[in-house]
Amino acid sequence: MIDKVIAHIDEHNKANIERLKEFLRIPSISTDPARKADTRKGAEWVHKVLTGCGIKSEIIDTKGHPAVLADTGPADGGPTILVYGHYDVQPTGDEKLWKSPPFEPTVRDGDLFARGSADDKGQVLTHLLAAEAWMKVAKKLPIRVKFLIEGEEEIGSPSLDEVIHKYKDRLACDYVVLSDTPKFDKTTPAITYGTKGLIYKEIVITGPKQNLHSGSYGGTLTNPGNALAMIIASLRDKDNRVTIPGFYDDVRPISDDERKKMAALKFDEKGYMNAMGCPSLEGEKGFSTLERRWARPTVDVNGLGGGFMGEGASTVIPARVFGKVSMRIVPDQDPAKIAKAFEKAVMAAAPPGVRVEILDHSSCSAYVSPMGTPGMDAAGEALKLGFGKAPVFIREGGTLPILPMFKKVLGADSIMMGFCMPDCNAHGPNEYFGLDDFHKGTRASAYFVDVLARAARR
Amino acid sequence: MIDKVIAHIDEHNKANIERLKEFLRIPSISTDPARKADTRKGAEWVHKVLTGCGIKSEIIDTKGHPAVLADTGPADGGPTILVYGHYDVQPTGDEKLWKSPPFEPTVRDGDLFARGSADDKGQVLTHLLAAEAWMKVAKKLPIRVKFLIEGEEEIGSPSLDEVIHKYKDRLACDYVVLSDTPKFDKTTPAITYGTKGLIYKEIVITGPKQNLHSGSYGGTLTNPGNALAMIIASLRDKDNRVTIPGFYDDVRPISDDERKKMAALKFDEKGYMNAMGCPSLEGEKGFSTLERRWARPTVDVNGLGGGFMGEGASTVIPARVFGKVSMRIVPDQDPAKIAKAFEKAVMAAAPPGVRVEILDHSSCSAYVSPMGTPGMDAAGEALKLGFGKAPVFIREGGTLPILPMFKKVLGADSIMMGFCMPDCNAHGPNEYFGLDDFHKGTRASAYFVDVLARAARR
Repeated sequence: MIDKVIAHIDEHNKANIERLKEFLRIPSISTDPARKADTRKGAEWVHKVLTGCGIKSEIIDTKGHPAVLADTGPADGGPTILVYGHYDVQPTGDEKLWKSPPFEPTVRDGDLFARGSADDKGQVLTHLLAAEAWMKVAKKLPIRVKFLIEGEEEIGSPSLDEVIHKYKDRLACDYVVLSDTPKFDKTTPAITYGTKGLIYKEIVITGPKQNLHSGSYGGTLTNPGNALAMIIASLRDKDNRVTIPGFYDDVRPISDDERKKMAALKFDEKGYMNAMGCPSLEGEKGFSTLERRWARPTVDVNGLGGGFMGEGASTVIPARVFGKVSMRIVPDQDPAKIAKAFEKAVMAAAPPGVRVEILDHSSCSAYVSPMGTPGMDAAGEALKLGFGKAPVFIREGGTLPILPMFKKVLGADSIMMGFCMPDCNAHGPNEYFGLDDFHKGTRASAYFVDVLARAARR
Repeated sequence: MIDKVIAHIDEHNKANIERLKEFLRIPSISTDPARKADTRKGAEWVHKVLTGCGIKSEIIDTKGHPAVLADTGPADGGPTILVYGHYDVQPTGDEKLWKSPPFEPTVRDGDLFARGSADDKGQVLTHLLAAEAWMKVAKKLPIRVKFLIEGEEEIGSPSLDEVIHKYKDRLACDYVVLSDTPKFDKTTPAITYGTKGLIYKEIVITGPKQNLHSGSYGGTLTNPGNALAMIIASLRDKDNRVTIPGFYDDVRPISDDERKKMAALKFDEKGYMNAMGCPSLEGEKGFSTLERRWARPTVDVNGLGGGFMGEGASTVIPARVFGKVSMRIVPDQDPAKIAKAFEKAVMAAAPPGVRVEILDHSSCSAYVSPMGTPGMDAAGEALKLGFGKAPVFIREGGTLPILPMFKKVLGADSIMMGFCMPDCNAHGPNEYFGLDDFHKGTRASAYFVDVLARAARR
């Protein structure tokens, strides 16, 4: 049966590309209040695809944008998977930087350029089309598949926690499957098994009640700008190790096996460095670039501001400065514990003569999926079948708050299948998704349910 | 004769206040191209006052706004003084913060509120009116007095160097007299005998070619924001001593005599602190607040920026950050030498993996006037006669680039007579000048030339 399903996907590839374009023409920018109706259209489009092939689907209203909940119903056996994804997209940014309009999908050299093509409409659609192919060819799927496609991912999924709790039973599953991460390189698909957590703070330092003349007052008070620099500088040593007391206490060491596997990946350090445009790669002493990127915690400045920020010079002592500082944490660091340690370290480093306030913007655990589970093994096999090349298993420095949430509420681990390119310009201008990857991703998704079903029968 | 001059000033006080208001109604904002014609009107107004009482005056055109050059002509003896001041004013800033419109002079509780009332039109006018009183009463001044009233002080006096060099002979003098500094407190006039120099730099740090996702890339490159914090933090130690190698080498120590005199001033530390709104006064260990403010060099952050500067959170690694950092220097620090030492220290503190560029915004020496000269003594006596209370001799943390320029080109030391209040809101909203101080300042200026002339005859 799987051969017929794959044949169906291959035969309908051209039509599927046209449907992807249709999906991409909907400007479902969740952060833009003016696009509220368009965002809802994204949910309706997804709902139509699912119901169109006979899958029971429902549009769930939330305080924000709706989510689509679907279910193929009880199967003869095998595990249940929940496909998670999102139909909302990032804003376009400066449209002048786009070579073709962000909501007019345009093919150049085999790549489809549009906002949302990779993140996440194109990748979501692979799973919808795979399910559809099964429905068309076999009238059913070999295992039970559920779908949760939300419309608020790009604004931090504010309603998702409530949705998952409310529909906990309907969402019950053995694995969550999502495609919102990239391949490893042009020819190698990837399964991402770990993400970092995030603690995002803002240090606000106030001194005098208004900006003061740096000549008339300099030397008699603590300058909030100098104080901020002292505090931030105190958080790391010259080997780029974080100096916050207790910071590394609960960090899960990278196992020898994992180190070996990371080292075996043909990671193009020079290409990576050149793509970023940095003069050199730097980081915590004693760890390779990939180890630091995927499995070591960091403290980074995300933004600085205060005092005179215009062109030229103005001799003021700033009344107020801010430093947005975030930490990416790894298993088994506890966000609450690390946040507390950070606050303590900041206060300890603050010189007298200023007021220090710490704002809290974000807090989320890291996540690592266990390896060697039937789901992971099946995913590896499915991607190999779909892409004609075995995937690599990688981690990701970014944060997906939904993963620990799924684990906590549904008890399910997540499998992240990456079909798009690492440089797909998600969030930037000229976002794209390779049409070949779109096709192969759809095949991989179709293979995945088949492999899972067969494994369960063994 | 002096008694008649003083009587003339007293009798004309009301009329003089009206003339000050007239002067203040001219919106001579030098930085605003739309006010070019108004700024010229300021020069014309000054010129009219001088010629109106028989003093030879000329409007000198420059590349920017004109200056007024005047001369009472050869006198029977005594030193020659050059009164320096400026008729241009700062922009008003947000006019909503003004209790009365900035160019509609309004009296409240004996204070005249208007842009330029203290800085510098009101204070300049005291000297013009004193000279006028002498001319009206005695048909001449007891010593030779010259005037240089420029229109570009608030934009950094870009034409002044050329003017002083070009009219070097016509400006030749024994002392420069200026009133562009404040009193010590409400009841005590002040003679300021020293200013700090200024070196203003901007450290620009670039890393990746665009802002990067702090999750996907964090830990693999040097974050320009963290690098900037490290560099700025490295410039001072925890005792607030500057750590730039060689920074203190040429600092002229504060003499025991000067320390004693500073300590004897009844400086209201608590009031000063509360006016600034800081939780405590801080600074270089081992020096008093006034010593640090007036006679110790500093390194201050004036502005910081880079990465995400909006409300909330965005997880980027900044491509570019900047830190505007200035140093106030004291005698005998050499600006060029200190600038070089700063650059070397910044480069030494910069971590690998980023590009560091240092922009140069400003460089000026400190200035200290010798004490105990006939000019200084006469100024002390004149202020005592004019205000009914002996002045204190103080220094200033701010920078007046014209002072070392006058010393270098004309060979003349400067005497800074302060008539306005320390909190006169120069450059801010609700700038004011006490009408009593305006009157007493005019008297003091009239006394000054008399005391100088009498001293010369002794």
